[in-house]
Amino acid sequence: MCELLGMSANVPTDICFSFAGLMQRGGRTGPHKDGWGIAFYEGKGLRIFRDVMPSCESELARLVQGLPIKSCNVISHIRQATKGAVTLENTHPFMRELWGRAFCFAHNGTLRGIRAWPPGFHRPIGSTDSEHAFCWMISQLRERFQRPPRRPETFWRYVYQLATRLNTLGTFNMLLSDGRYLGAFCSTHLSWLTRRAPFGEAQLADADLRLDFSQVTTPDDVVTVVATRPLTTNEVWTTMAPGSMVVFSEGLPWLSMGGQPS
Amino acid sequence: MCELLGMSANVPTDICFSFAGLMQRGGRTGPHKDGWGIAFYEGKGLRIFRDVMPSCESELARLVQGLPIKSCNVISHIRQATKGAVTLENTHPFMRELWGRAFCFAHNGTLRGIRAWPPGFHRPIGSTDSEHAFCWMISQLRERFQRPPRRPETFWRYVYQLATRLNTLGTFNMLLSDGRYLGAFCSTHLSWLTRRAPFGEAQLADADLRLDFSQVTTPDDVVTVVATRPLTTNEVWTTMAPGSMVVFSEGLPWLSMGGQPS
Repeated sequence: MCELLGMSANVPTDICFSFAGLMQRGGRTGPHKDGWGIAFYEGKGLRIFRDVMPSCESELARLVQGLPIKSCNVISHIRQATKGAVTLENTHPFMRELWGRAFCFAHNGTLRGIRAWPPGFHRPIGSTDSEHAFCWMISQLRERFQRPPRRPETFWRYVYQLATRLNTLGTFNMLLSDGRYLGAFCSTHLSWLTRRAPFGEAQLADADLRLDFSQVTTPDDVVTVVATRPLTTNEVWTTMAPGSMVVFSEGLPWLSMGGQPS
Repeated sequence: MCELLGMSANVPTDICFSFAGLMQRGGRTGPHKDGWGIAFYEGKGLRIFRDVMPSCESELARLVQGLPIKSCNVISHIRQATKGAVTLENTHPFMRELWGRAFCFAHNGTLRGIRAWPPGFHRPIGSTDSEHAFCWMISQLRERFQRPPRRPETFWRYVYQLATRLNTLGTFNMLLSDGRYLGAFCSTHLSWLTRRAPFGEAQLADADLRLDFSQVTTPDDVVTVVATRPLTTNEVWTTMAPGSMVVFSEGLPWLSMGGQPS
């Protein structure tokens, strides 16, 4: 098992607080010692930091937490290797370009038999089931849509179909972003939380760290955080139903599929 | 104009010394103030750091110089924007996956009319002529070879043909790597230097910094550095002829094309 963290916001937002909590799970409060990665969109550009060191010991993770990076869309992952060696090429998040957009993907779980599914035009660089599944998904999207569908909903409904098929192979908790939307598919465990005015104080579950969001936000800020397990102890998280997917846009849930009558 | 820096080595090597020199040219000893980037291969994986700040002022550049990263293949670039805004997506090096390998590319120069050349299967994410040219090149390679040619020479000779065609549109100094080989195409300016035993001391041209390589190497180390202009003042650099290409492997020139009778 690995842990996922995603963020969607309506203004560029610092994710340091949540990232600090997640990094503790990489070898300190959790067993996820086999590397970590975080990807930030800046406009259409994607910045990815990855390391094979446990996140709680990684010099790079420490440096990233100190960088003044703000983003509207973030995907992060800490890894406990089940398939594939502990190498840089096997470290999430993964990126592929489709229609001139950078797509970013991270996965938690194991997919049995995925190698029998042709990855298609895109090929995995490493040896994980996760990157193979991502290549298959992006190739399927490319095959189905010559160009981006006019309605983003059409795109995300097809992503949901593909994720549902992948989920039949095992466990497929997934975060996927194109820089504007953040899609979260829940196979077993994913929770999310929207923070907006009036902002209060949050207490990290994994480190002795509190943050008063009213001090670092403006009243119009809206930020949703998605994580494998709730990262804070004093806020109300929404637990996603297995088999459901929520797509977030500008900090808010924008499209929900499956898991409940829609 | 921008500046390029590449490295090919037979053992994972620290590029900090050359990178420190290059970074000075980003706004201090050179006019290249519109961002910088550096890509390191680690096995099949590729690690890219990029920033839109001038490299001499970039907090990230300072951090990268302090990281314990060693690599056999490195591509770096500092940018003076001619085409495309100063944004992350317009910052080199660029990456695309082909045949399950991460290809990395950086370019110095301007290509007039490149947008009339169909980028093909791969599409630029940003708006630079450079990324457009890279997408065109990778798409052409994908079209020509269904799978990696058995002989790497076949691949690189075709890259040379494509680079020669791109060069007709203006200036196309280029570095391209697949993680094993480093190809350098010279349109106007590129120089290279191989360091091997007996190692001596080098003096950076752009900073008051000297390094005695005999202190940081073993006798079997072989390292070639490629740069737009020589980075050191007391070593003998080979200036490439316009229209020529050299492919380096494990620290040594491995294949030369054009510019002189071959």
